[in-house]
Amino acid sequence: MQGAVLYGPRDVRFEEREFPTIIKPTDAIIRISATCVCGSDLWPYRGIQPIAQPTPMGHEYCGVVEEVGSAVTSIKPGQFVIGSFFASDNTCPNCQAGYQSSCQHFEFVSTAQAPVLRVPLADGTLVATPDIPPQDMIPSLLSLSDVMGTGWFAADAANVKPGSTVAVVGDGAVGLLGVLSARQMGAGRIIAMSRHQRRQKLAREFGATDIVTQRGDEGVARIKELTSGIGADSVLECVGTQESMMQAIRSTRPGGYVGYVGVPHGVELNGEQLFFAHVHLHGGPAPVRRYLPELIDQVWNGKINPGKVFDLRLPLDQVAEGYRAMDERRAIKALLRP
Amino acid sequence: MQGAVLYGPRDVRFEEREFPTIIKPTDAIIRISATCVCGSDLWPYRGIQPIAQPTPMGHEYCGVVEEVGSAVTSIKPGQFVIGSFFASDNTCPNCQAGYQSSCQHFEFVSTAQAPVLRVPLADGTLVATPDIPPQDMIPSLLSLSDVMGTGWFAADAANVKPGSTVAVVGDGAVGLLGVLSARQMGAGRIIAMSRHQRRQKLAREFGATDIVTQRGDEGVARIKELTSGIGADSVLECVGTQESMMQAIRSTRPGGYVGYVGVPHGVELNGEQLFFAHVHLHGGPAPVRRYLPELIDQVWNGKINPGKVFDLRLPLDQVAEGYRAMDERRAIKALLRP
Repeated sequence: MQGAVLYGPRDVRFEEREFPTIIKPTDAIIRISATCVCGSDLWPYRGIQPIAQPTPMGHEYCGVVEEVGSAVTSIKPGQFVIGSFFASDNTCPNCQAGYQSSCQHFEFVSTAQAPVLRVPLADGTLVATPDIPPQDMIPSLLSLSDVMGTGWFAADAANVKPGSTVAVVGDGAVGLLGVLSARQMGAGRIIAMSRHQRRQKLAREFGATDIVTQRGDEGVARIKELTSGIGADSVLECVGTQESMMQAIRSTRPGGYVGYVGVPHGVELNGEQLFFAHVHLHGGPAPVRRYLPELIDQVWNGKINPGKVFDLRLPLDQVAEGYRAMDERRAIKALLRP
Repeated sequence: MQGAVLYGPRDVRFEEREFPTIIKPTDAIIRISATCVCGSDLWPYRGIQPIAQPTPMGHEYCGVVEEVGSAVTSIKPGQFVIGSFFASDNTCPNCQAGYQSSCQHFEFVSTAQAPVLRVPLADGTLVATPDIPPQDMIPSLLSLSDVMGTGWFAADAANVKPGSTVAVVGDGAVGLLGVLSARQMGAGRIIAMSRHQRRQKLAREFGATDIVTQRGDEGVARIKELTSGIGADSVLECVGTQESMMQAIRSTRPGGYVGYVGVPHGVELNGEQLFFAHVHLHGGPAPVRRYLPELIDQVWNGKINPGKVFDLRLPLDQVAEGYRAMDERRAIKALLRP
């Protein structure tokens, strides 16, 4: 079987990898219908997060169950399933509290850019769709594996409510789906921060009412200007840099909420600044599993079409081009089909 | 009129100060019934937060209105009032959202260790009691001006609910009243972190069910041990150091809540650590004004007795001894009577 392997900065290869098999009785083997490249894959791809050895890649997936371990009871071969990038037992206290990405037994799924995938803790991780989906629904279902669930968590963590004024920092796929999530949650006004025309257009399609092109101090000033000087009720931080994090915190009104899902790289928050900002701060790796049943339902019933973020579709063997296009910001997100 | 003036590290003097008068039509002049020394006064007292010039001190107060400016309508001379250390108009969007300590027109009240005090924005800042209180209720009413309201905010920001497991970092007056607040909010279990016997005793009186004497890594391990390995639902951070803040964050379960009210000194939060901690973080200067009506009612009806934190009572002219006793941890909190 051939799959994606990262060798070093900007060096992704499509090459022979071990064929996955059931290792533990709680595993499942699924045949991938579609996978994709994540914004977070770009951190090691760019060498910002160094890797120690050649590393199989990919953590977003959906597909058809081929085989299940002897202990698996909730899914069966032939079903179409979606799972989170964090495998979780869905029974431990953290899972029960809705934080499956802090499951006491979590395993990171990291070999999904391939035709076949082993998923640990299958009962707790995978959710089956009502039936085999039509082909054109697959991109949207795939997005629920990480990117849409992460945008949804950002909006949820930022306490978006009907009528809220929301700002979104970051116009990557997560930020754009944060816009969509805020709209689904009934936000009254959604300000997307983007200086990239195609992304602005998609943000508008997903429900953005305003676009702010400025960043840093100017971006904050513009958000204040749009919100009677006080800041947004909810701000979604979908980047993970010091600048984006401070932009989010400073764009939020006192008593407002920052939901942050961009994996932080080199971020240090000054205690005093945070104290006087008076914001609520919540985020982390999205507990995608929590939202899967609800979001599958929304996709299945045509209420949302998050698959629109995939503006590049490639056969899996062209995975390297998917990374390149996203790295160079030619593509928002690359979908890969085995 | 004589009042407290800080000259430099450990140098508080009781000396002649200007007699306060109405400056703006929104001011009120009140005759102080009692004032006190705050834990946050110890930062400049210890020289950790340097002062540029001799500085009048004190921001906790209650007393009888002597005079009001021409624009003041909600209080009148003769009434007994309590106000927040942040004067606020109570009408701006931030006040309306319940964040009076981020009022767009806030002024810090900073000259309360004196017999007479000018309070700006009197209508928005002061709340009258139903009647002139009996003498023995004055310490509890005084505590609502800051320390009890701050403990209450810590518990509120930490989302304490009936049945919650709560940990409190810090056994100063705020931490102890955080314990009391958590009890009033119906916490099922309250773990006070303290290694000081007299404070442990008061924590128990206020409702602590467990005492943890360990700090840092050991303190975190002990909290985990007491909470089936997952951490507390709600943690109140009532100190403001790097160690206490990290102790609070690490003692909280994924998805749990940290309410922080200790004014941060030298605190830097690592973004990645915070991200994977998965906690909710909220805090800042307590919007004491929000809670005044409810807390006055609780004190007036004998439901709470937060005045117990004053374990040292001095005439105002011995204010320097009040600072010394708190600095040396001989006293939890010093009440001063003009």
